[in-house]
Amino acid sequence: MPSPSTSAESDELNTRVVLVQRPEGMPKPENFRVEHGPCEAPGEGEVAVDVHFIDVQPAMRGWLVEQPAYTPPIPLGGTMRAQGVGRVVRSRHPAFLAGDYVLGLNLGVQSRAVVPGSELTPVDAALAPLHEYVGALGSSGLTAYFGLFEVGRVKPGEIVVISSAAGAVGSVAGQIAKQLGCRVVGIAGGPQKCAYLVDELGFDAAVDYKASDLLSALRAQCPDGIDLYFDNVGGVLLDCALLSLRKYARVVISGMISQYNSPTPQPLHAHGMLLVRHARMEGFLVRDYLPEFPRARAVITDWLSSGKLRTRSHILEGVSAFPEALPMLFDGRSFGKLMLRVR
Amino acid sequence: MPSPSTSAESDELNTRVVLVQRPEGMPKPENFRVEHGPCEAPGEGEVAVDVHFIDVQPAMRGWLVEQPAYTPPIPLGGTMRAQGVGRVVRSRHPAFLAGDYVLGLNLGVQSRAVVPGSELTPVDAALAPLHEYVGALGSSGLTAYFGLFEVGRVKPGEIVVISSAAGAVGSVAGQIAKQLGCRVVGIAGGPQKCAYLVDELGFDAAVDYKASDLLSALRAQCPDGIDLYFDNVGGVLLDCALLSLRKYARVVISGMISQYNSPTPQPLHAHGMLLVRHARMEGFLVRDYLPEFPRARAVITDWLSSGKLRTRSHILEGVSAFPEALPMLFDGRSFGKLMLRVR
Repeated sequence: MPSPSTSAESDELNTRVVLVQRPEGMPKPENFRVEHGPCEAPGEGEVAVDVHFIDVQPAMRGWLVEQPAYTPPIPLGGTMRAQGVGRVVRSRHPAFLAGDYVLGLNLGVQSRAVVPGSELTPVDAALAPLHEYVGALGSSGLTAYFGLFEVGRVKPGEIVVISSAAGAVGSVAGQIAKQLGCRVVGIAGGPQKCAYLVDELGFDAAVDYKASDLLSALRAQCPDGIDLYFDNVGGVLLDCALLSLRKYARVVISGMISQYNSPTPQPLHAHGMLLVRHARMEGFLVRDYLPEFPRARAVITDWLSSGKLRTRSHILEGVSAFPEALPMLFDGRSFGKLMLRVR
Repeated sequence: MPSPSTSAESDELNTRVVLVQRPEGMPKPENFRVEHGPCEAPGEGEVAVDVHFIDVQPAMRGWLVEQPAYTPPIPLGGTMRAQGVGRVVRSRHPAFLAGDYVLGLNLGVQSRAVVPGSELTPVDAALAPLHEYVGALGSSGLTAYFGLFEVGRVKPGEIVVISSAAGAVGSVAGQIAKQLGCRVVGIAGGPQKCAYLVDELGFDAAVDYKASDLLSALRAQCPDGIDLYFDNVGGVLLDCALLSLRKYARVVISGMISQYNSPTPQPLHAHGMLLVRHARMEGFLVRDYLPEFPRARAVITDWLSSGKLRTRSHILEGVSAFPEALPMLFDGRSFGKLMLRVR
């Protein structure tokens, strides 16, 4: 968030996206406004960052409204919150120098961020392409990593099903599970995404939720049931997975994309299977694993550079593309990690 | 279960309850038939037991029908399955002698059981009253114990809410949590049960689900939210608890009494709170902790004899009371641990 400063530091303008209206249902471009203003100067302990890539992720939907959530809502008129990666322009924090690449969990949807240095993480641009720091090395990849290992306690050889499997989180989760020798079945929408999962990412099978009776298709691919369901979607898919659980199964609630735009969430019917199968359903917040992020990033960086982990980015150009980008996460138009390229 | 034997061993008759019809909705007396027949002789490795007390518990409802469940359904014409405690009449198993008191997880609803000795556990009738072995020392008490400690991972000082709190499982769970210094709120039906929780068992508060707007009442008693919800009921109570969870809360699904007699289970609406609160909901089967039963029984025996754990039994007389007893678990008429006294 910009520090309170009245004078612009340079002639350059900061382009930012602010929330002007809380959405009902699907977010619309008119919920946001693109503003241009002077670039703020960093105060003591702060750092000014030229933003290069901005993360666009489904959790953002929750930040737009006043409801129980793990993060407070963005105030009307406030800059849209976002993870980003960029380069230090000016630093008044001892840990950073101009020219350093940094990752910020809250750089915001803007071209120039001024944030406390304590909120930034240094990034080695030589180790991985910069945009991966908002994808596989950002909260999407970390969500996959901690969701599978810490929450799901995945074990080699298990039967793992992943929803929104062609998305930024699911595609990483599925590839990690494959590396562990799991049987991995991805659920995605449409033949193109399903083919991508099997042909390019090496999933064992894909189920097209648009084409099939999901429960039958899931059971056909997992005749012995599911050990771990990594859910990004909620709704009907969650019920179908619950009905297919094996004993001691785990359901990792990473997200509920299908529900974020509904005024009333779709009810769940098969939660009794948790009792019948001695199973566990658990939600989590990736930020709770913050102290372990460096360790996880080191592992994911290795996987990326060795080619064990493949990624697909869906890049839109410029800060001002944000209002059009956000709905793409919910209507199936995004394919791969959605992000904005600023520079 | 009776061993295949054609000749009666004695003139004594075995009275048993068999399932003759699978119930729809609430179990009815006509779903069962009381039969009198010759007592079987134990085969090699088997033991004949005179049953003293028979457990009557909600999970039985699930054994009556063909549906996904953790135990196979009782066949039509088969003896009703039940935990029981009794005394050995004749033994063809080296570990048991006539006169020994034994506990069996499957003695059945009958006056004389013939079962493999390997299924029996010796019982010291001097350590605790015999009927406690189907209550606080039986699967009800063990469900409370393992549900709280193993599944719920209860910690001292937490805010614990328990449904069906005046029941066999809930009353034990609540008293254990109190011993740990938790704030314990019980949900029960009617002023008599609520008074019992607070005045006799030392709960911090009780909420009468029949009298109050449950969500408001729960929030009034737990203004800071719930750390652990020990659920025996499911349905609306589960939704209200989910809406009141604190961060890192756990929901222990011990049972879903409110749902067992419904053709279609009541849907759940607030499961998204698991994501928002980084919370966990987990079902479990107490038999999965079988190897640890002796350790838990030793602890509970101590609590019983020192008066730290108080119990209330609801005892009906005779095997043939079973068909009338079972529905009492679901319509609120049972108060305390429901069981049959055979001798």
